[in-house]
Amino acid sequence: MEMITVQQAEDIILSQTNNFGIEYIAYNQALGRVLAEDLTADRDLPPFNRPTVDGIAIRYTAYEKGIRSFPIIAIQSAGESSVPIDSETECIEIMTGAALDNSVDTVIRYEDISTHNGVASLSIEIKKGQNIHLKGRDKKEGEILVKAHQMITPAIIGIASSIGKTTIAVKKLPKIIIISTGDEMISPESIPSPYQLRRSNGITIQSVLKKYHIKADTLHLNDDYEEIKKELSRCINKYDVLLMSGGVSMGKFDYLPQACEELGIKKLFHKIKQRPGKPFWFGKSNTQKLVFAFPGNPVSVFMCLHRYFIPWLEKSLEISGCFSGFAVLQNDIEVPFSLQYFVQVKLGTNQLGQVTAEAVNTNGSGDFSHLADTNAFMELPLEQNSFKKGEVYRVWKYND
Amino acid sequence: MEMITVQQAEDIILSQTNNFGIEYIAYNQALGRVLAEDLTADRDLPPFNRPTVDGIAIRYTAYEKGIRSFPIIAIQSAGESSVPIDSETECIEIMTGAALDNSVDTVIRYEDISTHNGVASLSIEIKKGQNIHLKGRDKKEGEILVKAHQMITPAIIGIASSIGKTTIAVKKLPKIIIISTGDEMISPESIPSPYQLRRSNGITIQSVLKKYHIKADTLHLNDDYEEIKKELSRCINKYDVLLMSGGVSMGKFDYLPQACEELGIKKLFHKIKQRPGKPFWFGKSNTQKLVFAFPGNPVSVFMCLHRYFIPWLEKSLEISGCFSGFAVLQNDIEVPFSLQYFVQVKLGTNQLGQVTAEAVNTNGSGDFSHLADTNAFMELPLEQNSFKKGEVYRVWKYND
Repeated sequence: MEMITVQQAEDIILSQTNNFGIEYIAYNQALGRVLAEDLTADRDLPPFNRPTVDGIAIRYTAYEKGIRSFPIIAIQSAGESSVPIDSETECIEIMTGAALDNSVDTVIRYEDISTHNGVASLSIEIKKGQNIHLKGRDKKEGEILVKAHQMITPAIIGIASSIGKTTIAVKKLPKIIIISTGDEMISPESIPSPYQLRRSNGITIQSVLKKYHIKADTLHLNDDYEEIKKELSRCINKYDVLLMSGGVSMGKFDYLPQACEELGIKKLFHKIKQRPGKPFWFGKSNTQKLVFAFPGNPVSVFMCLHRYFIPWLEKSLEISGCFSGFAVLQNDIEVPFSLQYFVQVKLGTNQLGQVTAEAVNTNGSGDFSHLADTNAFMELPLEQNSFKKGEVYRVWKYND
Repeated sequence: MEMITVQQAEDIILSQTNNFGIEYIAYNQALGRVLAEDLTADRDLPPFNRPTVDGIAIRYTAYEKGIRSFPIIAIQSAGESSVPIDSETECIEIMTGAALDNSVDTVIRYEDISTHNGVASLSIEIKKGQNIHLKGRDKKEGEILVKAHQMITPAIIGIASSIGKTTIAVKKLPKIIIISTGDEMISPESIPSPYQLRRSNGITIQSVLKKYHIKADTLHLNDDYEEIKKELSRCINKYDVLLMSGGVSMGKFDYLPQACEELGIKKLFHKIKQRPGKPFWFGKSNTQKLVFAFPGNPVSVFMCLHRYFIPWLEKSLEISGCFSGFAVLQNDIEVPFSLQYFVQVKLGTNQLGQVTAEAVNTNGSGDFSHLADTNAFMELPLEQNSFKKGEVYRVWKYND
């Protein structure tokens, strides 16, 4: 069977993005969700002429006429109604953030005045309109503050709060089930026989999806063909996406591709010229439900998830993640096979402003303990076998 | 009053780190918490000699004797007890991940054999021990898989699951209350008068802390000196850290420093040579409780939080975050004042593997809408006023 390239696999997967619609949620529950509407200014920002210092507010025409001492007729702090002066010879003592009345137009900070018997005197030169943040200077009412189609950050929550946007439109998330397979895989609470392993792929994938606030269900299936078919049929009806691990290589008990095809889930590809993750199977039901069937090895699962599923998810949600980038390789690497190699790297930055990538020797894909002390896969082009320190290649980040 | 430098402020704050102890939680609740123990292999990894392909397992001595056809006496899949051969002329059909019996030592993949009437024949050359991932090859029992003092990632959750580590020691988190002040600040659900603003600092800080799984309480205090003192006194008893915003500049109603000192909270500094965030006040009670009193402006709060509080938190938890790094400035900047300037930048990467930082013009610190479309503060050295495109400076990331 003909294997496809990483680029072909990406193209096929990204041609299957879906829009899952919109829902409305409370702003204080929206962190990490994807914003589905623009947030706009509900009024001018600032909403009033606002002193940027504490001091006194005067009318500049008085200063022009030579007046340098001003009786303080009131103290106005932030949150109080604006206090006018009755005559231009007077001033208001005023605090940062207060709303300036229209009768005053210039603010002088405490450091530049002296006060005696309720009269503030200044000796320095001043400019008309100084120390005032003018109404609408930052944003006009109706102007866009935050554009749609991005993950909601703490700053965006703060902006929503400041404009009274207490209910926010966010993208709905796909309903996902994570299915692991294999008779040899037992629960983490159990004591394994020498020939058994504890499951880890399900909880790993579930944990990665938490970043997107997706609460995925998990299911484990033993190697029983009829049971697998029955459960797959149920899941294809109930979920938008099935993320599976195991059961896709050449073994006698790797039923998944066959079971999927019998259920009318059309194979879009099987096997990619890559390591790890070669036997990755991808298909679609006639109801547009997607099946990502990853190989069972934990490193393969982790790579395929970050290289294929996350880009699919982010494109479906119309966000552009920053999990992909470029980095400078810090070691020489020889790749003795004709597969596109995804090497685990530790990312850093140096004082030249570069992202550095130190490749880790992992003894083949069985050992997944290095996934804990690395934070990206570097994608080394298929066309080469030899990669040198100082060369720049694409990386796919995890553990962020 | 003498202002201190950014470096002095950092040194003072980082000299006040605390250890909040350890607690034990379920592994599937541990994502994002800080690991407080090393995770070690509960047995050799792999725990048995493990075929890396599907095919047949033979004893190499038979091959050496010239035998090329082997009756298949059993099929063994992953999760089944090891099946021995009784005579070296036989073979076992075996699947990836199964546990090889000691009577066989070499695996030949399906692609390299032909099978007829239950007899597998090979025509290619083979090597002793090929296609086997040897017991203990990756890690020996007791070897460290994951070191303590790092944030628990999806990969670490997966590793914990695979070694049956279902209860994990994690660092306890500080108890934090976020206190905003100011009569002019109303709730986001309310309709503001022209001279009022809706609160945003509390929810912004609370959202940033969620990344560390800290569930901080929030409280708003109006400008009532006795009330402020009473509440501060209560909070200093109940919490480890008070994160405050507003009330620290020169205004008549900026009571906080005075209230803190009357309660025996010792000032460690007040005012830093920086913009934004100059009036930042920092103090400590005689019971080692800390008060970070930020200026009220949202940009100042955001900067001081990421530049001072987060490094304090990460040092207290003994993790080294990757939120600080270096980036290449993409614009020329003139700074017309003698304060260390923290400019908001949009980070990117280019095909040279560099982190790029495009500075945003923000019209002074009142406008916080740019915090949504930028993702770091670039720290421009105090000694210079002129910064050029292509120069590299330190950045403090947010929105990750």
